[in-house]
Amino acid sequence: MAQTDEIEGLAPGEEAAGGRRRGRRGRREVQGHSDAIEQKPFRARRNPFAPVQAVSEDQLEAIHSASLDVLENIGVDFINSEAKALLKAAGADISPSSDRIRMDRGLVLEALASAPEEFILHARNPERNLKVGGDSVIWSGVASAPNCADAQRGRRPGSQQDYRDFLRLSQAFNVIDLNGGYPVEPVDIHASVRHLDCISDFVTLTDKAFHIYSLGRERNLDGMEIARIALGLTHEEFERTPSVISIINSSSPLRLDTPMLQGIIEMSRRGQPIVLTPFTLAGAMAPVTVAGALVQQNAEALAGLAFAQIVRPGAPVVYGGFTSNVDMKSGAPAFGTPEYMQAALVGGQLARRYKLPYRSSAVCAANSPDAQAAWETVFSLWGAIMGGANYIKHAAGWLEGGLTAGFEKFVIDIDLLQMMDAFLQPLDTSPDALAVEAIRDVGPGGHFFGTAHTQARYKTAFYPPIISDWRNFETWRDAGSPTAYDKAQVVCRKALAEYEAPPLDPAIAEELAAFVARRKAEGGAPTDF
Amino acid sequence: MAQTDEIEGLAPGEEAAGGRRRGRRGRREVQGHSDAIEQKPFRARRNPFAPVQAVSEDQLEAIHSASLDVLENIGVDFINSEAKALLKAAGADISPSSDRIRMDRGLVLEALASAPEEFILHARNPERNLKVGGDSVIWSGVASAPNCADAQRGRRPGSQQDYRDFLRLSQAFNVIDLNGGYPVEPVDIHASVRHLDCISDFVTLTDKAFHIYSLGRERNLDGMEIARIALGLTHEEFERTPSVISIINSSSPLRLDTPMLQGIIEMSRRGQPIVLTPFTLAGAMAPVTVAGALVQQNAEALAGLAFAQIVRPGAPVVYGGFTSNVDMKSGAPAFGTPEYMQAALVGGQLARRYKLPYRSSAVCAANSPDAQAAWETVFSLWGAIMGGANYIKHAAGWLEGGLTAGFEKFVIDIDLLQMMDAFLQPLDTSPDALAVEAIRDVGPGGHFFGTAHTQARYKTAFYPPIISDWRNFETWRDAGSPTAYDKAQVVCRKALAEYEAPPLDPAIAEELAAFVARRKAEGGAPTDF
Repeated sequence: MAQTDEIEGLAPGEEAAGGRRRGRRGRREVQGHSDAIEQKPFRARRNPFAPVQAVSEDQLEAIHSASLDVLENIGVDFINSEAKALLKAAGADISPSSDRIRMDRGLVLEALASAPEEFILHARNPERNLKVGGDSVIWSGVASAPNCADAQRGRRPGSQQDYRDFLRLSQAFNVIDLNGGYPVEPVDIHASVRHLDCISDFVTLTDKAFHIYSLGRERNLDGMEIARIALGLTHEEFERTPSVISIINSSSPLRLDTPMLQGIIEMSRRGQPIVLTPFTLAGAMAPVTVAGALVQQNAEALAGLAFAQIVRPGAPVVYGGFTSNVDMKSGAPAFGTPEYMQAALVGGQLARRYKLPYRSSAVCAANSPDAQAAWETVFSLWGAIMGGANYIKHAAGWLEGGLTAGFEKFVIDIDLLQMMDAFLQPLDTSPDALAVEAIRDVGPGGHFFGTAHTQARYKTAFYPPIISDWRNFETWRDAGSPTAYDKAQVVCRKALAEYEAPPLDPAIAEELAAFVARRKAEGGAPTDF
Repeated sequence: MAQTDEIEGLAPGEEAAGGRRRGRRGRREVQGHSDAIEQKPFRARRNPFAPVQAVSEDQLEAIHSASLDVLENIGVDFINSEAKALLKAAGADISPSSDRIRMDRGLVLEALASAPEEFILHARNPERNLKVGGDSVIWSGVASAPNCADAQRGRRPGSQQDYRDFLRLSQAFNVIDLNGGYPVEPVDIHASVRHLDCISDFVTLTDKAFHIYSLGRERNLDGMEIARIALGLTHEEFERTPSVISIINSSSPLRLDTPMLQGIIEMSRRGQPIVLTPFTLAGAMAPVTVAGALVQQNAEALAGLAFAQIVRPGAPVVYGGFTSNVDMKSGAPAFGTPEYMQAALVGGQLARRYKLPYRSSAVCAANSPDAQAAWETVFSLWGAIMGGANYIKHAAGWLEGGLTAGFEKFVIDIDLLQMMDAFLQPLDTSPDALAVEAIRDVGPGGHFFGTAHTQARYKTAFYPPIISDWRNFETWRDAGSPTAYDKAQVVCRKALAEYEAPPLDPAIAEELAAFVARRKAEGGAPTDF
C-alpha cells in the first residue's frame, strides 16, 4: 500500500458497497505483499468470560447505598443554569442561590431506569459499527495527550502531522475499533478551529466511529454535524442513530462544570451517547481508600447519568470508571496499580448493577515504553477485561499518565490488544480440536511437528506477534539484542508507510469541506470557556 | 543488615522461638534503617476471586473424557519395572514385554479419589509453613535455568556463587514463599554432589520450604533426609509431615521415565508431595490445538497422579499445567501467549474437577527484561491467578523460556508479585473505608490531601513499588531516563547487601553438615541416570 491522503472517486450512492469492494481489494493487496504487517480482519469482539466479582453483593450494596447518601445529603455542584433548570423541573432539591443539587435516591434510580443496556455506535463505514454493552468489547487508542514521542524525534508538543500519523495508525490496525479522542493535541492549530480540522480528519483519514470533546456547546454541535454529514443522515435520522460519542468528566470531587453539562445536554438531547467518567484519584480528588474513591466515583457517575436521562429518557449512556491512586510520596497519579485493578473490577460490578455499558482504560504511569509501561498497561487491561469493560479507552500508545502519546508504545500495545483479541476467542473443543486421533497417531515418545493434524493447522493455530521476539538468545544477540522498543520503531514506520486512506463518497467529502470552511469563516468556536 | 553467611548461635531447642525473636529484631533494624527496602511481612495469601471458567462444564467434560480415552485406549509408557509391577498389582493393563500401560477410567478415578484436596507444606521455620490447595496462593522464583544474567557481568553459565545469590534474594523478599528448585544450575559443582550442596544451601541460606529434583532415587532420598534433619523430625514424623516437594515432568507425549517414576515412588511412599506437570507444548510434544494439548496434559497428569495414589493412597499431590504453544515459524517455545493464558485457565478447571491443588507458572520467552518480558510474565500471571492456581512457579527471574535466570528480572518480578499480593487483598468496605464523612468534610471542589481521613491512612493506603518510577517526565529525564531494568540493578545489589542469614539451631546445622560430609565421602549420587 502506498501512503496517500487522496480520496478516491466513487459514484454517489455507492459508498457503502464501494467501501466494501475497495476494502477487499485492499486486503488482497496486503496479502499479496509478503512484507505487509499480518493482522486479522476487523471483527465484533465478545468477552466469553463471566466478569470477576471483587466484592460481594453485600459490599456492592454498601458502596451503592453510600453513593446515594452522598447524592441525597451532600450533593453535587451543577455549574450551569440550563442544567439546574432541567434538574429542578425533574424534582431535584435546588436553591436558586447555589449550584448544589441534592437528588434523592428515588429520582436517581428512576431516571437511570430509562437508560438502554446497550446500543450500536455507528461509523461512516457500516462494517465498523460497534455494539456498546452486553458482552461486547471495543477499544480505542490514547487520547488527549499534550505531547507525543518517538525514538527518532523525542518528546515534543503534538502537531497536526503527529495527530494525523496517529489517526493513520488507528486506521491501519484492524484491532482498533474507534477513534477515542485526539491521540495528541495538535497545538499548531488554533483552538477555535482545531475541532473542525481534527474531527474532519477522523472522517477522511479513517472510516471508524469517533469521539468528540465536550468543550463548549459549539464544539459538540459542530462535531455532531460532521458525524451527521459523514454518515449521510438527515437530522431526524441522526437523532435516532448514535453516531458519535463524548466523554464527560466530572471535576472531582462532586462537580460538573458548564462545558461538560452542555455536552450532556447537547449530546443526550440528540440521542448521541455520552460516557460519564469521574476522575477519582484516591488520595487527591477522592478519599484515600479504594472503597471511598469508588463511592465518590459512583455518586458522580450516577449524578451525570441520571441527568442525561432527565435531558432525554432513553439517551444512550456509558458508566465510566477511572479510579486510581496517587503516589503518596509525590502526589503523582499512578496507573495499573493493584488499587487500580481492584477499582476496575468493582466499577464493572457497579455498572452491571445499573444495567449500563461499562468503560475502563488501559493506562500506565511510565515515562518510556519499558517493562514498567508494559506491566502497568497489562495490569490495567486485566482489570478492564476481567471487570467486564465494554469500552476500553487509551488502550494503545498511552504514556506518562496521559501526558504523552508514544508512537512505539502504540505499536507495542497493538500487539497486546491483538493478543487480548486472541485470548477472548472461545476455545474450540470440537472432536477435531480434542485431537485424540492425532495423539494416537503420534503415540508415546513421538513428535507432532510433521503430522497431518499439525500441518493442516499450524499457519493459523496461534497468534503471530508483531513485536515479540522469540528468537533464541544467540540469534537475538547477533542481531544486536533488540528490545521490544527497538522492534516497535520498525513496525511503526512500516504501518505508516502501508497506511491507505479509506474511500469516501465525494459528495460527502464536498459537503464536509463546505461545512468546515463555513464554520472556519464564522470564527470556529469560542476559546474563552 | 550486614551481608553474612554466619549462622548465629542459639541454645538447642530454642530455634523456633529464637527465630521469631531474631525475626522481630531483624525487622526493627530494617525499619530503623531508612534506606532499607520496604516490604510487607511474609503472609498466608488467599485468592479472593472465584476462578474464571474458560470452557463450559460440557466442554470440560469433553476434555476430561477424551483424556480418559487416551489412558484407556492409547496408553502411557511407564519406563520403570518397579512402577510397572505396582501398576500391574493395582489392575492396570500391562504386558511384560512392553512399557505401555493402559488404565481404565474406573482405575484412574478411583485412585485419584484418595488424593487430599489440600495439605500443609512445612518449612524449617514454622512461620513459613504453606497451605497448598483451597484458595491459598504460593509462589517461588525461577528454577532450573542453566544460565544466569545481570547487567554488570552479562549472561553466563550458573555458578555456586550465582546460585547462592539467588537464594539470598529468595530469602530477602518476604513475598517469595518457597524455594522452587535451583534458580540456576551451579555447573561448577560436580553433578554427583551438587544436590547435597544445593539442598543444604536451601536449609542454611533460607528458612523457607523447598523443592528437590527427581533425578534418580538417591537424590530423592538425600533430599528428603536433609529436609527431615532440617525440620528436626523423626523418620516416623517425617512420613506424616509434608516437608519437601518435587516436580515430576512427563516426557511428553505420554511417557514417564525412570527418574521421574522413582521420584513418585520415593516421595509418595514417604508422604511427601509431588507436582505432576506435563510439558505439553502445542505443535511440538502435543497437538497443535489448545484443546488437544490440554487433553494430552490431562492424560499425562492423571496417569502420574493416579500412580502416586497407587503407591500410597492419600499421598499429597498437585496437578501441574504447563501447556503453551510454539512459534510455528521457528519451533521455539513461547510463553505468556493468548493460548498459554487459555490453557492456564482450563488447567485450573481440570484440577478443581479432580479436587486437587493446581500449579501454574509466571513465565516468558523474552531474552532481556524489556517490555516483552513484562507483558509475557503478567499475561502468564493473569492466567495463573484468574485460573485459581495454588502454586505459581518460576514467578521471579525467569527469562528466555527458562534458559536464563535474570537477576534484574528477579527484582522486577518481586515488584509484580508484591502488586499481585496487594491486588489479592480483600477490599475493605467498612463504613470508615466508604468514607462518606470524609467526602462530606471535603465537599464539592475540595481536595483530600490534607484531610484527617487521608493523613491517618496515606502511609499504608497504597502499595509502594520498589521498581516503578512515578516521577514526572522532566525529573525522570534529568535523572538520566532510567528504565525499570536500570532501577532493578540498584535494588538487586541493595537486596543482596541487606541479606541476613536466618538463624539455624546449631545441633541441626551440625547434623546436616555431618550428613552431607558422609554422603560426599560415599561419592554422592550416580551421574549416569
